Amino acid sequence: MSPRVAIGPSSFAEADPAPMQLLREAGVEVIPNPVGRRLTEDEAIALLAEADGLIAGLEPLNRKVLGSAVPRLKAVARVGIGMDNVDLAAAKELGVRVSNTPEEPANAVAELTVTALLALARELVPSNEALHKKEWKKLIGSGVYGQTVLLVGYGRIGRRVGEMLRPFGVKLLVSDPALKAGDLPADVAQVSLDDGLAAADVVSLHAGGKATLLGAAQLAQLRPGALLLNSARGELVDEQALCAALDRGQVRGAWFDVFWQEPYTGPLTGYPQVLLTPHVGTYTSQCRRDMESAAVRNLLRDLGAGK
Amino acid sequence: MSPRVAIGPSSFAEADPAPMQLLREAGVEVIPNPVGRRLTEDEAIALLAEADGLIAGLEPLNRKVLGSAVPRLKAVARVGIGMDNVDLAAAKELGVRVSNTPEEPANAVAELTVTALLALARELVPSNEALHKKEWKKLIGSGVYGQTVLLVGYGRIGRRVGEMLRPFGVKLLVSDPALKAGDLPADVAQVSLDDGLAAADVVSLHAGGKATLLGAAQLAQLRPGALLLNSARGELVDEQALCAALDRGQVRGAWFDVFWQEPYTGPLTGYPQVLLTPHVGTYTSQCRRDMESAAVRNLLRDLGAGK
Repeated sequence: MSPRVAIGPSSFAEADPAPMQLLREAGVEVIPNPVGRRLTEDEAIALLAEADGLIAGLEPLNRKVLGSAVPRLKAVARVGIGMDNVDLAAAKELGVRVSNTPEEPANAVAELTVTALLALARELVPSNEALHKKEWKKLIGSGVYGQTVLLVGYGRIGRRVGEMLRPFGVKLLVSDPALKAGDLPADVAQVSLDDGLAAADVVSLHAGGKATLLGAAQLAQLRPGALLLNSARGELVDEQALCAALDRGQVRGAWFDVFWQEPYTGPLTGYPQVLLTPHVGTYTSQCRRDMESAAVRNLLRDLGAGK
Repeated sequence: MSPRVAIGPSSFAEADPAPMQLLREAGVEVIPNPVGRRLTEDEAIALLAEADGLIAGLEPLNRKVLGSAVPRLKAVARVGIGMDNVDLAAAKELGVRVSNTPEEPANAVAELTVTALLALARELVPSNEALHKKEWKKLIGSGVYGQTVLLVGYGRIGRRVGEMLRPFGVKLLVSDPALKAGDLPADVAQVSLDDGLAAADVVSLHAGGKATLLGAAQLAQLRPGALLLNSARGELVDEQALCAALDRGQVRGAWFDVFWQEPYTGPLTGYPQVLLTPHVGTYTSQCRRDMESAAVRNLLRDLGAGK
């Protein structure tokens, strides 16, 4: 009997049919996401009722869901890096193999981070909005040339952001406790978080973990008019303290692609100086294809199926 | 008697007081722009009535205006590159020295060009707008990684755009009749305009002159879904043919910072997929300061004033 694979992400193979073709060529029977959005716990249990494997998005894969799906469910392959939605301990106990695709997203997430920084620094959104209303309003932005950018976290994504920003003439600082001597290019300076916050015109978060890095005390150290970028995790920033820093202008503008709760409908939606994107760091056609194809290969390997 | 210098640009020294200080330290008497916007012909004549020099923006400096201001007017110093608003032949005949600041703007204009490209390629504006309305709508963009970008014109600005885009993993093509062998880095290919238009995912205009480069015939050669960027001159593109190409989706998105008439209120304001900025390529605080300071130094030199 051919293995049955359930599909969690509602956008799977939307950008490019190649990942779906990989599954079909391996003789897999595909069970699509029936609701066209992120699955709830009950919906995940229903989807997995007769599945041997799962191409996973961000649906809750806790002990209850995984427990309901074994012994038939053998493998879960996340499309993406984050594993917060997967109870890895439960998966191990229940004998479900779990994989992710850490390499593919870095470039696309870094690209969106630089996109947001440039848009903030050049007043792109208010200028464009005004001119579509036929208002010719020349705003002077900071630009990024000559600005000091602090990268908080220097893993795959932080490094790519630094590489992309280099030709723009920024000064790069990095704060990352895991860094060793020699990990940094000669033109990038390592600093403590406190020193970096006090020196930076722009702070970009690329750290792991769920601890709050920027609470009221840390935001108070920022230079007046600083920009804050968050493509990593909502929880890294205290939302209420951020709103206060925006209200007093200490944070002049910000971009968030990740939130404390998603879909996000919180207070940042009321700040025009905050750019908001709906967790789409990896949403380019190229990146979706690459990540989805990698997840399919991981799943077929873990199921012992296909080539 | 100290020389009197009139100021054309309404935004002069707005970003930074340094250029105004340079004038005052040279013992100059400053006549500010009295209307807070671009001067008309009559207003320019009135402003220049008792001026020895002019820090010039884009106000009309035709034979009539210049003729009314001589013999007292000795020098005009443009803040910026373009000299289309200055009748250079008349200035020469009338003995008015004219200067511009070609070096300073290239970086800022290139930075805004890359800003607009990234924003279009990542669907930044519609994503941000939706989320501010609390709509969580994940759009898949093209991204720029792996895309083919045609630079039409490879002067100071085109070169900087290429340098800035290199770490994003784009493939660069250049069309510029003035190029000689050896002018291009090894990873940049020279092409004819026709070949470039047919091959590019993104076309960015950095050419001089007033001739229409992209009319209906040229736009018809574009790949379906191409992006078009114009930081050079409105006249390079046929506006009506562009609207038709947008209507049929052959041009998927575009950015214009320059227009056939400014301030612009034309049909592009009705296209949400077209980013519009009000001729602000040089509007960063750093670039304004650098250009304005350079213009002041040029003017003081041409007036034989100051240090």
